[in-house]
Amino acid sequence: MAKSILITGGARSGKSTLAERMTLSLGRPAVYVATAEAGDAEMADRIARHQARRGLEWRTHATPLELCAALRATDSAPRLVDCVTLWLSNLMFAERDWEAEVAALCDLLPTLSAPVVFVTNELGSGIVPENALARRFRDMAGWTNQRLGAACDEVWLCVAGQPLKIKPPGG
Amino acid sequence: MAKSILITGGARSGKSTLAERMTLSLGRPAVYVATAEAGDAEMADRIARHQARRGLEWRTHATPLELCAALRATDSAPRLVDCVTLWLSNLMFAERDWEAEVAALCDLLPTLSAPVVFVTNELGSGIVPENALARRFRDMAGWTNQRLGAACDEVWLCVAGQPLKIKPPGG
Amino acid sequence: MAKSILITGGARSGKSTLAERMTLSLGRPAVYVATAEAGDAEMADRIARHQARRGLEWRTHATPLELCAALRATDSAPRLVDCVTLWLSNLMFAERDWEAEVAALCDLLPTLSAPVVFVTNELGSGIVPENALARRFRDMAGWTNQRLGAACDEVWLCVAGQPLKIKPPGG
Repeated sequence: MAKSILITGGARSGKSTLAERMTLSLGRPAVYVATAEAGDAEMADRIARHQARRGLEWRTHATPLELCAALRATDSAPRLVDCVTLWLSNLMFAERDWEAEVAALCDLLPTLSAPVVFVTNELGSGIVPENALARRFRDMAGWTNQRLGAACDEVWLCVAGQPLKIKPPGG
Repeated sequence: MAKSILITGGARSGKSTLAERMTLSLGRPAVYVATAEAGDAEMADRIARHQARRGLEWRTHATPLELCAALRATDSAPRLVDCVTLWLSNLMFAERDWEAEVAALCDLLPTLSAPVVFVTNELGSGIVPENALARRFRDMAGWTNQRLGAACDEVWLCVAGQPLKIKPPGG
Repeated sequence: MAKSILITGGARSGKSTLAERMTLSLGRPAVYVATAEAGDAEMADRIARHQARRGLEWRTHATPLELCAALRATDSAPRLVDCVTLWLSNLMFAERDWEAEVAALCDLLPTLSAPVVFVTNELGSGIVPENALARRFRDMAGWTNQRLGAACDEVWLCVAGQPLKIKPPGG
């Protein structure tokens, strides 16, 4: 059973940089499983900057929705999934059964041969959003992080670019 | 002097589940001190799901405002107060002197015979709200968490469903 | 090379109180480097409350923009910079090159003779703001915290008024 790691934190807290370092420490080359779609200029710019930082030690596997299939298809090298929150957002807009998809992902983890590092986001520590959809998505993201946190071997929180190990405790 | 514990974290970070486990570990049956009012469908649904999860080891004591009285009236079994933020919101809408109520709560803690576990929320780690009332409530919640954090024996932060001990340090 | 410390946390999480205690523990009297401008009643009130709490062991050096110059000019006593987020906001509104200013600040730190304690804010753990300017500022603040987190000797997170050491780890 391969190691699985969940990395969470606020916006621009250094999650992706930490995740890239951790993934490469588990084997090279690694696979960058991108859940983003370059749908607008802001996102395209962010993806381009990420790619420039990653360099030649990475292959990219783009999958806005089929995360479980992507992990099965790439199960010979360490994977970095960036990020869970965008995947969840894609599932919601595609009107997929996100709870079933998250459960399937958690069930898949113990069957994998190669490690997986997930990047996710803290979205639930601000004031309660006035917008009902935002409130619902905040709940979805929180539940998903809980389920992945239970399923993964390690959970890390990024604060000001610095990693803090949450699970296992005392590390 | 009975143990008092403060559990904080973002939305859907696993605070209530952790609080229920900690409260039951301090004695059974326990008392669920509910500060929520089932005022709308979203909240009624949330309360019903919480009750379904708690089962028969719990008695429920509902009190949107009179938290100190509720803790005095139930001081023979461990209490779970869920949650401080809703209590504060109820105090604000009832135009009560919330600072005096929080101070009274902190003063009450060392006089109690049975333990108390408080659930509260992190509301202050998002962008500054444009709405002045939201900004004020965010400040109120932060101050209240500080005061309870100082008054309680333990403070825990939930991240992706995993508990992290903040106070006492090094634990 | 003098010690540098970054203290972060949500609104009203106890950052300033912790920062004041840490700064005074590094030497007295200390210098309070205020980046706030008393531009509206809410902020003026906040500044007045901060000053009342600080008392006579502090000198105040106000600088909405010229933080590097302020640190060079006061380099014989411990400094508390409160706060980085307001400085960044002032730079943005003055249309200054904030990335260059943050880089200059990080370069300055190893050259200082007296210690510096920075207070900053967690702004990136709520739901993604709908407002593009808020989104941009959230990114700016996150990057700045990362850079300062890398440059400083210590990073602390305040939760419910309680300090948690993030860097160096295991402390």
